[in-house]
Amino acid sequence: MTDTVTAAVLLIGDELLSGRTQDTNLRSIAEFLAPVGVEIREARVVPDDHDTIVSTVRHLSAAWTYVFSTGGIGPTHDDITADAMAAAFNRTIDVREDAVDQLKRHYGLRAPGQEINESRLRMARIPEGASLILNPVSGAPGFQISNVFVMAGVPSVMRGMLQDIGHRLAGGSVVLAKTVRGRTMREGDIASALGEIAKRWPATSIGSYPWMRPGGAAGPDYGVNLVARSRDADALSGAFNELIALVRSQDIEPETDPQE
Amino acid sequence: MTDTVTAAVLLIGDELLSGRTQDTNLRSIAEFLAPVGVEIREARVVPDDHDTIVSTVRHLSAAWTYVFSTGGIGPTHDDITADAMAAAFNRTIDVREDAVDQLKRHYGLRAPGQEINESRLRMARIPEGASLILNPVSGAPGFQISNVFVMAGVPSVMRGMLQDIGHRLAGGSVVLAKTVRGRTMREGDIASALGEIAKRWPATSIGSYPWMRPGGAAGPDYGVNLVARSRDADALSGAFNELIALVRSQDIEPETDPQE
Repeated sequence: MTDTVTAAVLLIGDELLSGRTQDTNLRSIAEFLAPVGVEIREARVVPDDHDTIVSTVRHLSAAWTYVFSTGGIGPTHDDITADAMAAAFNRTIDVREDAVDQLKRHYGLRAPGQEINESRLRMARIPEGASLILNPVSGAPGFQISNVFVMAGVPSVMRGMLQDIGHRLAGGSVVLAKTVRGRTMREGDIASALGEIAKRWPATSIGSYPWMRPGGAAGPDYGVNLVARSRDADALSGAFNELIALVRSQDIEPETDPQE
Repeated sequence: MTDTVTAAVLLIGDELLSGRTQDTNLRSIAEFLAPVGVEIREARVVPDDHDTIVSTVRHLSAAWTYVFSTGGIGPTHDDITADAMAAAFNRTIDVREDAVDQLKRHYGLRAPGQEINESRLRMARIPEGASLILNPVSGAPGFQISNVFVMAGVPSVMRGMLQDIGHRLAGGSVVLAKTVRGRTMREGDIASALGEIAKRWPATSIGSYPWMRPGGAAGPDYGVNLVARSRDADALSGAFNELIALVRSQDIEPETDPQE
């Protein structure tokens, strides 16, 4: 196993930048990759613009082990991702029989009225040399081109496609994480001691995440989550014990997740 | 009014890339900017890494009219955004009295036990020449440096800070949008006609957004949202009427939002 395997996520779609749509795909991909040991190092959201997609995917593909893209592979005029991916890797693109077969198999299972018209055939346009990614939800396949996995933008379809990707990944060593929650704790009261703990455990990355919600009759709900992350289980557990002691030092009962 | 005013959003934080936290700030910022006529052209998510933040903010600041960053301005060791912003613009950074005043005013209103210790003073470290952004929620200010607005990552705090930013923006012409929903409509059945409408209305951008949810006893819930966006109200309404007719042509009753 190699030590660090990296990835970028590329979210494609005007609707994510206009505020129309709340993205959830970045988090789904991150949750899928964490146990495989693939670390996401950056994510970008770009509009449905050919040149932007081409230049961005070239950059990300060269910078990281893997790239995961979502969006823009449907049948309509604003679905331009497949063409942009082909251009990014200087490949031709055309309707491919193996992709048509997947569409046919899917529509064959459906009620009548959903034939493979010219528009739907657009979804079988796949760059030369790319391998298909099965779509168990809505039929039209994604594809892998070089180190880039090209998936649909609809969250349920995207999650279905991830199931045909895991086995293609060379995983790295897994980053373990443990969280302790200090309700009513304030960052400003623990920041100094927390910095000392971070210094004592260099193989563990320690993050501090405050939260704050208006709350109801009981007043606002606030506090801090302290998260330790490490590839080394012993270092993780040593640092984590100190985080728990830190919460207790504030006269606050630490809350942890028994599943971690 | 200038015609097109652009922006980038820079989301800073390991927790967004690890899948621990679901970002909502991009969408909040987009919803805030839309009526002002500022168009978000790209968004990036980067880890808490000094060099990455410096190089990314330099790039985005040069490329777009405005940059909106969130995250990394708290009191703990992993809050490195303020220093990175100073470095990006070759400014010095130190505790500033005007920022200390804002902290004092906030903590003065609170119950005892929340004094301004050394850790909290870290939140008053502001790059030379930056102007403060009021934080009505938790006291510690954000700041504007050059064309970059540096805000907190906690969503409620970030939204509070936006209220002190609107009046600083030179707005552009506003992009109007209208949505029609076709429940049980399928993209593949309308893609060709939709492409024709898009060609007939070049001043209107037309997006097609399918959705699909497992659903309950009534079967899966699916359909397509068609969104027309334009700076020209007449072009918008002409294109939109054709979208409504397109949905009707599928024997589906179009659903629109009366508020739009």
